Amino acid sequence: MTPDVAAAKQALSHIEMDENPATIRSKSRDFFWYSPMLKARLDHVQADFVVNPKSEAEVIEVLKTCYAHDVPVTVRGAGTGNYGQAMPLAGGCVMHMKNFAQVKEIHPGRVIVEPGCIIKDLDAATRAHSGQEVRMMPSTANTATIGGFVAGGSGGVGSVKWGALRDLGNIIRLRVITMEAEPRVLEFRGEELARVSHAYGTNGIITEIEMPLAPAYDWVDMFVAFDSFPEAAQYACDLANEDGIVLKLASVYEAPMAHSYFQRVKEHVTETDTLVGLMVAPHSMDGFETFTARRPGARIIFRSDANDWPRDPGPVFEFGWNHTTLRALKFDPKITYLQVRYQFPKHLELVEKVRATFGAEVLQHLEVLREGGKVCFAGLPLVSYTSDERLEEIVRMHEDMGCMIFNPHRYTLEEGGRQSADARQLAFKREADPKGLLNPGKMITWDDPDWAYDRIYDYPGMLQVEP
Amino acid sequence: MTPDVAAAKQALSHIEMDENPATIRSKSRDFFWYSPMLKARLDHVQADFVVNPKSEAEVIEVLKTCYAHDVPVTVRGAGTGNYGQAMPLAGGCVMHMKNFAQVKEIHPGRVIVEPGCIIKDLDAATRAHSGQEVRMMPSTANTATIGGFVAGGSGGVGSVKWGALRDLGNIIRLRVITMEAEPRVLEFRGEELARVSHAYGTNGIITEIEMPLAPAYDWVDMFVAFDSFPEAAQYACDLANEDGIVLKLASVYEAPMAHSYFQRVKEHVTETDTLVGLMVAPHSMDGFETFTARRPGARIIFRSDANDWPRDPGPVFEFGWNHTTLRALKFDPKITYLQVRYQFPKHLELVEKVRATFGAEVLQHLEVLREGGKVCFAGLPLVSYTSDERLEEIVRMHEDMGCMIFNPHRYTLEEGGRQSADARQLAFKREADPKGLLNPGKMITWDDPDWAYDRIYDYPGMLQVEP
Repeated sequence: MTPDVAAAKQALSHIEMDENPATIRSKSRDFFWYSPMLKARLDHVQADFVVNPKSEAEVIEVLKTCYAHDVPVTVRGAGTGNYGQAMPLAGGCVMHMKNFAQVKEIHPGRVIVEPGCIIKDLDAATRAHSGQEVRMMPSTANTATIGGFVAGGSGGVGSVKWGALRDLGNIIRLRVITMEAEPRVLEFRGEELARVSHAYGTNGIITEIEMPLAPAYDWVDMFVAFDSFPEAAQYACDLANEDGIVLKLASVYEAPMAHSYFQRVKEHVTETDTLVGLMVAPHSMDGFETFTARRPGARIIFRSDANDWPRDPGPVFEFGWNHTTLRALKFDPKITYLQVRYQFPKHLELVEKVRATFGAEVLQHLEVLREGGKVCFAGLPLVSYTSDERLEEIVRMHEDMGCMIFNPHRYTLEEGGRQSADARQLAFKREADPKGLLNPGKMITWDDPDWAYDRIYDYPGMLQVEP
Repeated sequence: MTPDVAAAKQALSHIEMDENPATIRSKSRDFFWYSPMLKARLDHVQADFVVNPKSEAEVIEVLKTCYAHDVPVTVRGAGTGNYGQAMPLAGGCVMHMKNFAQVKEIHPGRVIVEPGCIIKDLDAATRAHSGQEVRMMPSTANTATIGGFVAGGSGGVGSVKWGALRDLGNIIRLRVITMEAEPRVLEFRGEELARVSHAYGTNGIITEIEMPLAPAYDWVDMFVAFDSFPEAAQYACDLANEDGIVLKLASVYEAPMAHSYFQRVKEHVTETDTLVGLMVAPHSMDGFETFTARRPGARIIFRSDANDWPRDPGPVFEFGWNHTTLRALKFDPKITYLQVRYQFPKHLELVEKVRATFGAEVLQHLEVLREGGKVCFAGLPLVSYTSDERLEEIVRMHEDMGCMIFNPHRYTLEEGGRQSADARQLAFKREADPKGLLNPGKMITWDDPDWAYDRIYDYPGMLQVEP
């Protein structure tokens, strides 16, 4: 099966394409370079061409044509992922959804939208229509698309209240196109959603998304400082357990993270300040202030509705989730990170165990989230990178202590997830992508069902580095 | 200190009053007769007169005048409480707030309202204005006032998501009038709210309420049937732990409650069916159905958006909370109830222990609620009443097993609460009601600070039964 790229490109020439080599290169990449291991392996990856469909009909045409010519298709939103989710490991076509971005319907509690819509634009539309917004978003919401978030994300700002994208009710419906001689149009709800959500576009292309909405408020952004990290973590956890206080974000940044890497915050903190970043609904501010006044160790150093900071630090959510890592990387390119889940009820205890084990080598950044109805932590700690071997060892040591790791130094679904096959996703790929052309190399169980996960998976079809 | 009722009544004659003796009697009562112990003690209680102020100025006038003439004042909403909260134990003036009921301002996430507003009317106003509703309400929301709920209630429909009224953020602000020679107007927020919320009007009169709002949806009412009670309880608990599914109510009714007492439900269930009553947001129905399909024991027998029942059973919330008891009492006047808290994480286990102990003598009715961020149960079991002694014994046996009891066979704040003095409420009563004229007999620590709670408190100032 040899792809005929030229023929596919020719047949699709009436659809908008990017021809500039620099554009093709940039649209073949995401934030994979957060990981030194992925940077070493994926830096050369590049599509043969980039096509920008503007409708479902054009998506179907791209899939049908590429199928006919055996050309791989990797779908892409804004490329804000960190796992190489949208990088075309085998080259071929990158299908960029930026032109396919209409907000179609808004109702109480839900919206119907095309996948290329940027989350910021989606929120602006639902807010203007009826004071609503999406329940959760990545810290990259100002550039990321809703389709990329559903296909490549797992949660984020809002997960402190709503849990993860994979939780029941956090996606209502997905419309999906298969990659066959005659692509089919399918509608998934309920159990079927798990086939294609968080599948990196490996087994179908999402063309319409129905998402639940939450009320949109004029969130008050805050930074609360603590001398003690455990006190800060306990505060954030307890605040999220206050049923009557509406929170959208609760992040904990271990000292000296804020002082070292948060540029416009630096002058307001010391090297020993651990910060908690928060978004609180305005009508919950009285309850919040009462809660905080009960904690003598808590100092509110910034609130967006009343402060004397000479320079606005920008939205607090752009300090949280994966933006924390980005800010640190700008100062120190040797930093990388992990994705840790500290599960209830041992979350606080586990974090302290990890801190005692690694000290400054692994600096704690926690995001409070709900899992199964209980408040716990997602950790995105900053790791001082020395070698791949040490990084792998750090991962293993976390797992040995009882933490769950979603390894961000891997480019496959399984390794970045629970290190096991997702039978539903694999079964649907068999049905929907018989030639295995959708985002190749990202689903290990498709290529090698017996993979043991004892080392990083090396996709055999990977583009070779040009000499 | 002898009250001069006639002088006070004369001085207030320009304010609307009820003169009809039957009206005075009915406005001196609430649902205290749920309890055989309260029925025996309070049935004769009656005000000397009932005044219906329509503004804060008139409230101040009533308080000032009654203060001058040493006349007790008991404030009253719709009289839907069950603890005799609004019953004038020492006679005097009942101040009925029905005319003082304006919705003053509605904003995103909050409303400002006068205390006499019926919750149904308040919800209609906030819904029409901006698709919002109060976070929680009693099952009597169609007749109860918002002021009565704040002063005499503790939670209800909506507590499955928002916890209790006492939790931070569930009341924003209260405006309160003192009973002094010159009544003062005070504004309470934060920690100060605990002085007067759930204080039965014993230490101040609420004249304005600022409450947080939640999004209002066209809730889908449902009944789900189970053969097994423990399975039903587990289902309700697990459903409430689904972070992505928006619930407003989850009640569990042990068999044969639904068959025996739920008139329009009877023909659709058997004597062995345990029912779960639910309110789910329409945009959460897909997630809900997916969740329910995973439980082979769950049968959805009614949903308000699609059913073939010849007669509409009415709102599901009018089967829950204290309405369950009301429905049972209509069939069997020997039934009474308890208020039990089964706390996380032993809630499921404790319920089974109680069931094994009492069998049919104490039939389980559970309401799922959040407490400290965790899902657990409020129990309002139906109790077969035989004697006061046995009822007291049942209460003690619950406490011995580790359940918390809010005793509904008591008319004082302390006995219906945590059986201890609330220092904040007492301190504020000293300040705001120096003559002790506000709702006398309801705060034990005012009358008898050394009370041991070893038997029912007998208010010495109680009106005598007329021969």
